[in-house]
Amino acid sequence: MITAPLHGVVPPVCTPLTAGCEVDVPSLERLLDHLLDAGVDGLFVLGSTSETAFLPDAHRRTVLEVAVARAAGQVPVLAGAIDMTTLRVLDQVRTAAAAGCDAVVVTAPFYTRTHPAEIDRHFRLVAQRSPVPVFAYDLPVSVHTKLTADLLCGWAADGVLAGLKDSSGDEAAMRSVTLATRDSAPSFSVLTGSETTVDTALRMGVHGVVPGLGNVDPHGYVRLYRHCVAGEWDAAAKEQERLIRLFDLVNAGSAARMGRGSSALGAFKAALHLLGVIGDPLTAPPQIPLDAGEIDRVRTRLAESGLL
Amino acid sequence: MITAPLHGVVPPVCTPLTAGCEVDVPSLERLLDHLLDAGVDGLFVLGSTSETAFLPDAHRRTVLEVAVARAAGQVPVLAGAIDMTTLRVLDQVRTAAAAGCDAVVVTAPFYTRTHPAEIDRHFRLVAQRSPVPVFAYDLPVSVHTKLTADLLCGWAADGVLAGLKDSSGDEAAMRSVTLATRDSAPSFSVLTGSETTVDTALRMGVHGVVPGLGNVDPHGYVRLYRHCVAGEWDAAAKEQERLIRLFDLVNAGSAARMGRGSSALGAFKAALHLLGVIGDPLTAPPQIPLDAGEIDRVRTRLAESGLL
Amino acid sequence: MITAPLHGVVPPVCTPLTAGCEVDVPSLERLLDHLLDAGVDGLFVLGSTSETAFLPDAHRRTVLEVAVARAAGQVPVLAGAIDMTTLRVLDQVRTAAAAGCDAVVVTAPFYTRTHPAEIDRHFRLVAQRSPVPVFAYDLPVSVHTKLTADLLCGWAADGVLAGLKDSSGDEAAMRSVTLATRDSAPSFSVLTGSETTVDTALRMGVHGVVPGLGNVDPHGYVRLYRHCVAGEWDAAAKEQERLIRLFDLVNAGSAARMGRGSSALGAFKAALHLLGVIGDPLTAPPQIPLDAGEIDRVRTRLAESGLL
Amino acid sequence: MITAPLHGVVPPVCTPLTAGCEVDVPSLERLLDHLLDAGVDGLFVLGSTSETAFLPDAHRRTVLEVAVARAAGQVPVLAGAIDMTTLRVLDQVRTAAAAGCDAVVVTAPFYTRTHPAEIDRHFRLVAQRSPVPVFAYDLPVSVHTKLTADLLCGWAADGVLAGLKDSSGDEAAMRSVTLATRDSAPSFSVLTGSETTVDTALRMGVHGVVPGLGNVDPHGYVRLYRHCVAGEWDAAAKEQERLIRLFDLVNAGSAARMGRGSSALGAFKAALHLLGVIGDPLTAPPQIPLDAGEIDRVRTRLAESGLL
Repeated sequence: MITAPLHGVVPPVCTPLTAGCEVDVPSLERLLDHLLDAGVDGLFVLGSTSETAFLPDAHRRTVLEVAVARAAGQVPVLAGAIDMTTLRVLDQVRTAAAAGCDAVVVTAPFYTRTHPAEIDRHFRLVAQRSPVPVFAYDLPVSVHTKLTADLLCGWAADGVLAGLKDSSGDEAAMRSVTLATRDSAPSFSVLTGSETTVDTALRMGVHGVVPGLGNVDPHGYVRLYRHCVAGEWDAAAKEQERLIRLFDLVNAGSAARMGRGSSALGAFKAALHLLGVIGDPLTAPPQIPLDAGEIDRVRTRLAESGLL
Repeated sequence: MITAPLHGVVPPVCTPLTAGCEVDVPSLERLLDHLLDAGVDGLFVLGSTSETAFLPDAHRRTVLEVAVARAAGQVPVLAGAIDMTTLRVLDQVRTAAAAGCDAVVVTAPFYTRTHPAEIDRHFRLVAQRSPVPVFAYDLPVSVHTKLTADLLCGWAADGVLAGLKDSSGDEAAMRSVTLATRDSAPSFSVLTGSETTVDTALRMGVHGVVPGLGNVDPHGYVRLYRHCVAGEWDAAAKEQERLIRLFDLVNAGSAARMGRGSSALGAFKAALHLLGVIGDPLTAPPQIPLDAGEIDRVRTRLAESGLL
Repeated sequence: MITAPLHGVVPPVCTPLTAGCEVDVPSLERLLDHLLDAGVDGLFVLGSTSETAFLPDAHRRTVLEVAVARAAGQVPVLAGAIDMTTLRVLDQVRTAAAAGCDAVVVTAPFYTRTHPAEIDRHFRLVAQRSPVPVFAYDLPVSVHTKLTADLLCGWAADGVLAGLKDSSGDEAAMRSVTLATRDSAPSFSVLTGSETTVDTALRMGVHGVVPGLGNVDPHGYVRLYRHCVAGEWDAAAKEQERLIRLFDLVNAGSAARMGRGSSALGAFKAALHLLGVIGDPLTAPPQIPLDAGEIDRVRTRLAESGLL
Repeated sequence: MITAPLHGVVPPVCTPLTAGCEVDVPSLERLLDHLLDAGVDGLFVLGSTSETAFLPDAHRRTVLEVAVARAAGQVPVLAGAIDMTTLRVLDQVRTAAAAGCDAVVVTAPFYTRTHPAEIDRHFRLVAQRSPVPVFAYDLPVSVHTKLTADLLCGWAADGVLAGLKDSSGDEAAMRSVTLATRDSAPSFSVLTGSETTVDTALRMGVHGVVPGLGNVDPHGYVRLYRHCVAGEWDAAAKEQERLIRLFDLVNAGSAARMGRGSSALGAFKAALHLLGVIGDPLTAPPQIPLDAGEIDRVRTRLAESGLL
């Protein structure tokens, strides 16, 4: 089901919650339709934007089942299998594969102190035992190590991984890997997690984009991707710059009151609530909710961007 | 069952594994007996020394059940409830409490980006919903934030927490918290995770010690603790210095081949294997095993210290 | 002399040294000619590539004098004024201005622990007392803080700074600043320090490029810049990809033997020596010199890239 | 002049400034007398507490001359020789030695990216060319690397260094080095930079203490040191705990308005001003001054501690 390399717009799907902090299934279904109707090329559930670090295993299973059912084979579903180390990750991988996902997305070990040899052993063991293709998830802000080009190119050359989801913010390193694998491992897919450098990442040769802001404006990212594919770089830059201005909504929450994660995820959900897609803007504890004034900042950004 | 404040020697118990990477229950029982027979004052399971980050939930449950059964009410059993954020931690807390543990040990959120207000909300929610007392686990090397004295003193004053397990290595901060809570929250327990500053930590007024090396030489730590309680500071220093030299076994594994965690946990298990306590020195993947020469370095340290 | 915004290729000039660790003036003159003959648009002396952190004040003065004399007004000369805090930086600024530089490049305070309010006070004081325009130098790998978009946009709007030299590697943040200042401060110049994302940085709207590798292949960067200005994006990408492959020479030095700075600066100087531009590839202590095998790796990269 | 090992109370001397930001020589002389009269065993100028990172070279020279003259051979004067790398440090070393200092205190390279082999080369080159004994200054909060026990023990064994000034806060590592050098290099001196773990550091075997708070209460630290030497550990703990409470004055400055350095150094100077020792509490730019309410917090701490 997964193309090789996977390409296009693959939004990381928010996880709507009820006031009692359960998965809000009707809202999740509406959100998935909102994305599919916009023409996205795949779905990524249980990543950072999905609040996967905040979701108990039972919630994670619900998200997997709903996403696979709603995608219904129209587009591939990638699932984060996020846990601290190899055996715990493999438990998550098996659950995701059993739910019908097309691929899993896995980080280096975290919480433990790691060494490159241990990171290498981790990915090779996970890939060997996974029933579905494995993408590496490079997310140093969470994992506190960066996947090196040497490791990534080795895994690509050995066929260990299907691709890389790069949320490191290190465009130079991402470009090196993209260039190095272009000839040596042509089915290896590089996806950027950036919201604001999509056009330039595609110029560098990456295959797909996984923008959290794609929950709020999937049509914008689909248009942007299509401009790039068509070589319409000036139109692409204009669309990208509109999305950069919209992306400022992630700063809606006060830095004195909350972390940047609470602010960004709270803003995405507030936007989806203002747009009528989801029923409640709640984020999972211990995140701090946006207050009314902060939600107004989100509303203003939506209006300026023509979405409201 | 837990005294307030909890005090004495509370070793963090290693988790012996079989060659197939299952919990080696007979070895775990022998290790628990080895500790209880030495006269320890409590047991801490599912912390870093227990490889909790590497153990699937099913393994964790086995460890809890074996430890509670073997302690059999002679000493309290504390259990790490280690996961990324509030709702996931609460799942771990409920499992530990159901297994009969006397208290749980909980870190700040990790993997996510956090803010002090979120850390505060996290501990208050966990404590409010936990059936058993909660200790804060300050472990910046894993969690990537440090618990501040302000937060800790607030939780102590409000009766949120039973105590602190300090593995930060920041003795000055630990002393501030110990001094500040001595009068304001006399039942608040401060435990140090250090192997090598036990005598000085006890001079600062901490109540107990949680040394990973206590798996290997529980008699040494029990003697050291008793010297300190008796005010025999020179004898304490002499015992502590012997243990510092023994502790060098954590450097047995080559830094070129493996991380410091693989080396330290591998060395503890190699020592327990050489001492005949456990059946196999295996550590969980993706840790790198010690090779024969590295195990010889462990043997040498044991011999120099009079244990072998 | 400085255009506003400053634009084009502005290489950071290496500082050739004699065997006795003095500035090798004839080699420096040949290097400056090598750059000027290739058609560069400016020169940046006393930055990281110049080993400014390794040069005593007397060496720095020599570099300034030689560069200003050799540039002879054909192109502007920017000078790093690198020191820990405000008053020490101002000593460096005055020396650079007295030597005839056209602008200075200044980092946030380092070695001390800083706060955004202190960084703001620092740049405003330096700019107020500097006889020449001031560029901010964003170099978190050395300074250990990142200049925020809020601070940068405030300085641009208030006319405090002439521009930004961005070596943070954070392309998304650089793009935000570029976009935000485009209308509000049109004379504010954004220069990227990247060797490998020049084409995409120019697509984002930055004005100039300061590539360390430009010492080795100034013609390549001049061609690349001209392709971008002409909108020849595919030709630009091809040239950029050749330079990415050449840039791999920075990995010539063994990571087991030396730091990445020793390797990169040693490789630039080895290349300049192999190309006959400078007399000795020596870097300043305590950097570790490349050995013969490592210099061979540099030679291979030069040959593959058509330079040798 | 320097004993081997150097021992006792060696306060790091604040640098009083005039309103015009020049060194306030009469205030500095009064401060030096304040310390010498209290019976300190040495003086450390141009360290962090002296704001050395903020002082131009001309200010540094004035401080050196005044301190050497005022000490007049009664106690040794150690001088920080703080700069980025080897050749620049050697310029500072020569100036300090020429001014008559008894030893210099030197950090690992900073601002540059370093490797252990480069740190080793740095200290060996500096020591070889220094006319006076060299102490290593371990200050990871500023330097961003930690000196390892391996490097320190190697330098001690080879006679490269006279000792270590440990401001790392890592008591366990400091104890390892102290224990390892006790027999192998008996003249090697270990000094702790801590204000709040003096009694326990002395129990571990360190030789001296370099407490910034010693500017404010030198009599307290002299009493504390003498209690420890006499084996009066309970009296020592009581004095230490009083000083810990006094030390809270470093938090006087609002964390929303300024960095922790501005707060701590501003509080030391405010205290010295309130005690009538120095003429002006000014700290060097870009530090933020304490406001009236913050100075009141300092006054309260002094009063509670019996100093005012």
